[in-house]
Amino acid sequence: MIRRIASYMPVLDWGRAYSSETFSSDLIAAVIVTIMLIPQSLAYALLAGLPPEAGIYASIAPIVLYAVFGTSRALAVGPVAVVSLMTAAAVGQVADQGSMGYALAALTLAMLSGAILLLMGVFRLGFLANFLSHPVIMGFITASGILIAASQLKHILGVPAHGEALIGMLASLAEHLGETQLPTLVIGVSATAFLFWVRKGLKPALRKLGLSGKVSDIVAKAGPVAAIVISTLAVRQLGLADGGVKIVGEVPQSLPPLTMPSFSADLLGMLFIPALLISIIGFVESISVAQTLAAKKRQRIDPDQELIGLGAANLGAAFTGGYPVTGGFARSVVNFDAGAATPAAGAFTALGLAIAAVALTPLIYFLPKATLAATIIVAVLSLVDFSILKKTWAYSKSDFSAVAATIALTLGLGVEVGVSAGVLLSIGLHLYKTCRPHVAEVGLVPDSQHFRNVNRHRVETDAGLLTLRVDESLYFVNARFIEDLIQDRISRDKSIRDVVLMCSAVNEIDYSALESLEEINRRLGELGIGFHLSEVKGPVMDRLESTHFLDQLTGRVFLSQFDAWKALVEAPRIPEAAE
Amino acid sequence: MIRRIASYMPVLDWGRAYSSETFSSDLIAAVIVTIMLIPQSLAYALLAGLPPEAGIYASIAPIVLYAVFGTSRALAVGPVAVVSLMTAAAVGQVADQGSMGYALAALTLAMLSGAILLLMGVFRLGFLANFLSHPVIMGFITASGILIAASQLKHILGVPAHGEALIGMLASLAEHLGETQLPTLVIGVSATAFLFWVRKGLKPALRKLGLSGKVSDIVAKAGPVAAIVISTLAVRQLGLADGGVKIVGEVPQSLPPLTMPSFSADLLGMLFIPALLISIIGFVESISVAQTLAAKKRQRIDPDQELIGLGAANLGAAFTGGYPVTGGFARSVVNFDAGAATPAAGAFTALGLAIAAVALTPLIYFLPKATLAATIIVAVLSLVDFSILKKTWAYSKSDFSAVAATIALTLGLGVEVGVSAGVLLSIGLHLYKTCRPHVAEVGLVPDSQHFRNVNRHRVETDAGLLTLRVDESLYFVNARFIEDLIQDRISRDKSIRDVVLMCSAVNEIDYSALESLEEINRRLGELGIGFHLSEVKGPVMDRLESTHFLDQLTGRVFLSQFDAWKALVEAPRIPEAAE
Repeated sequence: MIRRIASYMPVLDWGRAYSSETFSSDLIAAVIVTIMLIPQSLAYALLAGLPPEAGIYASIAPIVLYAVFGTSRALAVGPVAVVSLMTAAAVGQVADQGSMGYALAALTLAMLSGAILLLMGVFRLGFLANFLSHPVIMGFITASGILIAASQLKHILGVPAHGEALIGMLASLAEHLGETQLPTLVIGVSATAFLFWVRKGLKPALRKLGLSGKVSDIVAKAGPVAAIVISTLAVRQLGLADGGVKIVGEVPQSLPPLTMPSFSADLLGMLFIPALLISIIGFVESISVAQTLAAKKRQRIDPDQELIGLGAANLGAAFTGGYPVTGGFARSVVNFDAGAATPAAGAFTALGLAIAAVALTPLIYFLPKATLAATIIVAVLSLVDFSILKKTWAYSKSDFSAVAATIALTLGLGVEVGVSAGVLLSIGLHLYKTCRPHVAEVGLVPDSQHFRNVNRHRVETDAGLLTLRVDESLYFVNARFIEDLIQDRISRDKSIRDVVLMCSAVNEIDYSALESLEEINRRLGELGIGFHLSEVKGPVMDRLESTHFLDQLTGRVFLSQFDAWKALVEAPRIPEAAE
Repeated sequence: MIRRIASYMPVLDWGRAYSSETFSSDLIAAVIVTIMLIPQSLAYALLAGLPPEAGIYASIAPIVLYAVFGTSRALAVGPVAVVSLMTAAAVGQVADQGSMGYALAALTLAMLSGAILLLMGVFRLGFLANFLSHPVIMGFITASGILIAASQLKHILGVPAHGEALIGMLASLAEHLGETQLPTLVIGVSATAFLFWVRKGLKPALRKLGLSGKVSDIVAKAGPVAAIVISTLAVRQLGLADGGVKIVGEVPQSLPPLTMPSFSADLLGMLFIPALLISIIGFVESISVAQTLAAKKRQRIDPDQELIGLGAANLGAAFTGGYPVTGGFARSVVNFDAGAATPAAGAFTALGLAIAAVALTPLIYFLPKATLAATIIVAVLSLVDFSILKKTWAYSKSDFSAVAATIALTLGLGVEVGVSAGVLLSIGLHLYKTCRPHVAEVGLVPDSQHFRNVNRHRVETDAGLLTLRVDESLYFVNARFIEDLIQDRISRDKSIRDVVLMCSAVNEIDYSALESLEEINRRLGELGIGFHLSEVKGPVMDRLESTHFLDQLTGRVFLSQFDAWKALVEAPRIPEAAE
């Protein structure tokens, strides 16, 4: 019983072995991550269209719940860029930004997403994430990065603008370009420039000054905090807020509040599909990060348990004033690099953020939104990487089409359409390929027992024997194709006495394909041509043996293609019992 | 140019060789089919919720157009049971039965369906029909047969009833059971019993009386006509119509009228999905019949041209007062058995039906609807065949699930949900299977060069060599599975020096899988384990050669698994250049 509970709560596993040494590693990591998370959480809340404190709240309870239920030692859970953008898109469809309904819808989205993840975990549906191919994910993240950066330009310019897809956003910005506020623009542009320099130029500069790699790394990570402090002070001292510079304003000085999402069937219905997409995208992002980090320390991640951890984290966000969360790449890598040894590091981070929520919020009253926008832009532009287009183009046009469609549709029609189209197109293209499989006519490679394509290798063949290797499982989408192909081949070549279907690449024969094989056998039988199979795999053979097909088969089933060659070519027409 | 046109109009091909001999075969077939089609057309129109003449009109222009554009020599196009039911379901959602809008919607549905079929033909999308697996079609037809029979019970009882799915229909019937009309019931039950007897008992009885097989066959086929004549006379002579027996009533005495479907965007939008389903189901039914009949005479059917033929037939129906049509099983088989030699037989049938429409319609004024319902019930109950459940259960649980879901959902929620679910479930189950493919560890079959599963065959293995045969293409849904599997296998067995991935069943390696292979290669490299591939197929190898993967590969690519065995086991650790 205890074991059973433990299997759902990995904390019971690592908690028992907790030592003072791991405690200090975890604590150091937590301090570093907390400093990085404060500006990031505020910024992502802005991206999601929520008040800044929602970002901090969304980082506290979820981190603790993930520490209890998750399996990754280094994953840091909280608001992330892509999920924040998807939240804005989903919630924006059911409520106006800034209204009470908006925040409520965000809580409800987190609850739905948590419930979906939890159920997927309990029913062990982690494999569903595999349907997002890696190129599609890369394309989606690149396009989302561009969308996110574009959505922040209005804060940099200080103008109102809206639109969910790229063209709408840019058009709306262009319309309002004349209203650009100079002070906001100065803050926004200089914060962006500063943050880019921190990311690219500061670390090498510090190392030249003789600082160690680790210290210069930490200083560089604190860059966003510096940008926030400087711009907040500037706005306050120069009275820029009165001049129209948008500031964060009053943020409640409180621990995460207890909140109640909506259970209205209408709202749940409207948010279901977005919640499903957010769950899957969030899960895929999180599991990729977790697996990358686990592989470095030879630890194992259990995808189904990860679903439960993320589900619990999202439910936590729903009831404590947050919004959908997942394991973030940047924060997890920082956590890992800072030496986090157990999920307790996450719990300490949560403590740090709770202190910040209670003590530091008055300090950010004058924080300009342009600085937060700059933080987001610099963070997401590092996600933009078009090289996947070039790589897939060189390797496979079908992968390329899926990526290109994902990018184009995400930019053109928004995140939900983009990622759904990417998944459906990948599956569709795969199925299309299996519709008309590659079929090779094979012959014997001289001085071996190996058979290869007659068009690619110098091989021995026999006029009376046609051996076809079908490079695909036989199932309903291609069953009739094979039937037609053999019919066609036979009608063109009258010398054929025997047809062997070499099944080394046939991993499944479904009921439709069985019927096609019966039909082929019947037709060849009428023409006096023997129909044989070779190299049928164990699981496929088991299934065929449960039918009458093998009794009706005019020919034999050979263990190997070479056996078929020996029996049909080297010693032809000697009757033998079927193997 | 002429050739190009001819490729779209097979009539130009068979028309040139037309002789007086084929003319007489065609004419005889046409007479027999016409006699059978008159009651059937009236009955299916009733099933579709349309006035009886619509069924006759739907058989005239479509037959002629199919004769011009279709490729099958024996296919007879017109209203069929399943498509009529689907028409009733689709049109019933947008208009009330009996209203002007209802007939207009049926014309519009035929036009949309014709346009979809035509476009699929021009874009050569005939392969899409393959996504309906044979078991799903069988299940769908069985369930539709039951639904259709149930929908006709109200005419047999003479009560009003409605409902689209089985439970609703039966509940509605039960509610009105008290209103059953005795004269209608007598006509309905005796017509049904008579028609069943004609089908099962008459032919043997006639043959016992010494009639030839062919003649007794034709007499049996005329059974429905006899039922119509007798019941019409009975209603008329006994004045039963005044007693409440529902009759066909006045039918316009005319050739098919020129009609205009609606082009309203709203209506087109609402009918699009039903039209798509009707097109695909109709196409699948038609092509199955056409291919079965063509195989008997070693003729070939071109699926893409068939789409064009059926598309033209449906457009014809839309503009001449009909509703969606397709190639029907019963009428085509009769046509074939009666000796139809060319599509001209269809044109003669159309002529016969046109004469009937002009001359015979007054005669059916007193035809009771109960008799038509009996015709439908007897016809469709022959489609009901639950044996597919038993057959698929024995062969493959996944095929069984698809069939069972199709039957249950068609009966429970209607034809559109049922068939869509069947297709999606078949595809989903197939993808699920490829998610976690069968992977066999293989060894050398003694005294051969053949490698098989160590768990199924007595084979030689080597402690330092792990050879895995993955029985599936490597693509995004299973890429990570393979990565984890090898990781797992390696961590359990420290003696492994070399890993060979035997790719005889790998028909594709997509970009995601390439990345996984790179990752496996990197991880094994770190552990000092060589990573090799064997039996990579031509098309897969071509693609790998376009990348840097083969340069990075720590091991080699072997043409055959036996070459790998020779190099790695029999002469281990001798460095050689990669092949």
